Amino acid sequence: MSAVGRILLNSVCRGGRAVTPGPAAGFHRGRNVLHIQPLITTLRLSHHQSALAKGLIFRQLFEKISCTYTYLLGDVQSKEAVIIDPVLETVSRDVKLIQELGLNLLYAANTHCHADHVTGTGLMKTMMPGCRSVISNDSGALADICIKEGDYINFGKFFLEARSTPGHTDGCLTYVLNDSSMAFTGDALLIRGCGRTDFQQGCPKTLYQSVHEKIFSLPADCLLYPAHDYTGQTVTTVEEERRLNPRLTKPLAEYIDIMNNLNLPKPSQIDIAVPANLRCGIQD
Amino acid sequence: MSAVGRILLNSVCRGGRAVTPGPAAGFHRGRNVLHIQPLITTLRLSHHQSALAKGLIFRQLFEKISCTYTYLLGDVQSKEAVIIDPVLETVSRDVKLIQELGLNLLYAANTHCHADHVTGTGLMKTMMPGCRSVISNDSGALADICIKEGDYINFGKFFLEARSTPGHTDGCLTYVLNDSSMAFTGDALLIRGCGRTDFQQGCPKTLYQSVHEKIFSLPADCLLYPAHDYTGQTVTTVEEERRLNPRLTKPLAEYIDIMNNLNLPKPSQIDIAVPANLRCGIQD
Repeated sequence: MSAVGRILLNSVCRGGRAVTPGPAAGFHRGRNVLHIQPLITTLRLSHHQSALAKGLIFRQLFEKISCTYTYLLGDVQSKEAVIIDPVLETVSRDVKLIQELGLNLLYAANTHCHADHVTGTGLMKTMMPGCRSVISNDSGALADICIKEGDYINFGKFFLEARSTPGHTDGCLTYVLNDSSMAFTGDALLIRGCGRTDFQQGCPKTLYQSVHEKIFSLPADCLLYPAHDYTGQTVTTVEEERRLNPRLTKPLAEYIDIMNNLNLPKPSQIDIAVPANLRCGIQD
Repeated sequence: MSAVGRILLNSVCRGGRAVTPGPAAGFHRGRNVLHIQPLITTLRLSHHQSALAKGLIFRQLFEKISCTYTYLLGDVQSKEAVIIDPVLETVSRDVKLIQELGLNLLYAANTHCHADHVTGTGLMKTMMPGCRSVISNDSGALADICIKEGDYINFGKFFLEARSTPGHTDGCLTYVLNDSSMAFTGDALLIRGCGRTDFQQGCPKTLYQSVHEKIFSLPADCLLYPAHDYTGQTVTTVEEERRLNPRLTKPLAEYIDIMNNLNLPKPSQIDIAVPANLRCGIQD
């Protein structure tokens, strides 16, 4: 607790409690304290907070079957918006939300050609005329706009920078918000994990280099939002993954050995999802 | 797009694309644009961004079976932290994260005595010595600290204000962050919904008044984080729920009629969860 907080606490505590809080922290009673607010703190904008402060609408959305995260980003002022990795089964939910928030969806972008679910970009285009699908040129998939390393996706006063982060698939992109406050890593980097490298164009050495060169080089407090999480976690940071990722913190040779011995079952949806995702970006 | 963004875009576009973006938005190529960053925008801190800007660690965590959200809040400087609504089955995940982030967990607080899952506060106390359980005095449940309307939970330079929001149960609390940038509504208010009122001490009229008086009175851009979501949504705002909540926007009489005719099945875990949760706050 800050010194200011401590002084506030000591001055407003009223009598005994069933369990008295210790001196290092505690409760204080009475709404009358509120008029002393705000607590005096130094306002220091870190990287990961500046975009939000500039009027970003941001929503993380979850699809339970494939444990996929979809991200909606919009500009408060212009209402222009982009959605990342929509899932076919949850397009109606997402379209409803976009309409409720009064957003103008410009782009439905995939981080890569997914193997575990069918993308929602095709259906979303039919439900939101004007929306254009986006994917990496290296994915081999069809879309209205195929992009590559260094391209930007603009929405209002914001943009997403596309970084090529292959290794899970050849066409994997990481989308970085213009102020590097947040990045959408697809399956390249997961929370305390990473995408598998044993199908499509997977290559552990390539993925290792992608993550170290293109993601770990972002600011330490950059928020990382993955395409999936299977444990109920929602976000991590560059600093955390640099320090705590059980795979990517290993030397390259050890990492390759780990990735080549995961012995995971074939994704149940792969034979349906990949062919569909190779063409879903242009569904009419 | 802002005028500044438009100028940037026009000045850096390079040649044609497979699909040329329209004038109101678009892509631009080349990492060389990045050195012109940051885009010149007026920095206006809205309510829902100021707490993050002041050094709040914030994590939303999900438990898939009961669709429960757990929230971890910590102070970057002091490392003091509080967890809201931990779930028994995901305590190990949460404890690991708390340790990885180097946080000192002071309190494990419940928004109410849950009927759909067993709280993790008891187990968390055994795994994190020094952590004290917190619940509303009106819940009838045991905990290290029983609180009521107007009490504050301090962690570092932040605090959560407890607002009494009964109606789903008598002991429901909404925890409001000190700058009113975010609030944790438990089952009082869900995203486009609300907690049911047909068991424990449920009362639709009481819940309606709680939401309108204690939650809808918060700033319009206050982020609302519920205890549950069954559709994969993660957050809403006061403005959205004031405008879009299909139940709470109705007149009181109509709302009561809706709530009295939901005809939902009995929660499958209620006979296990409620007795456990009445004593779990003091599990040793």
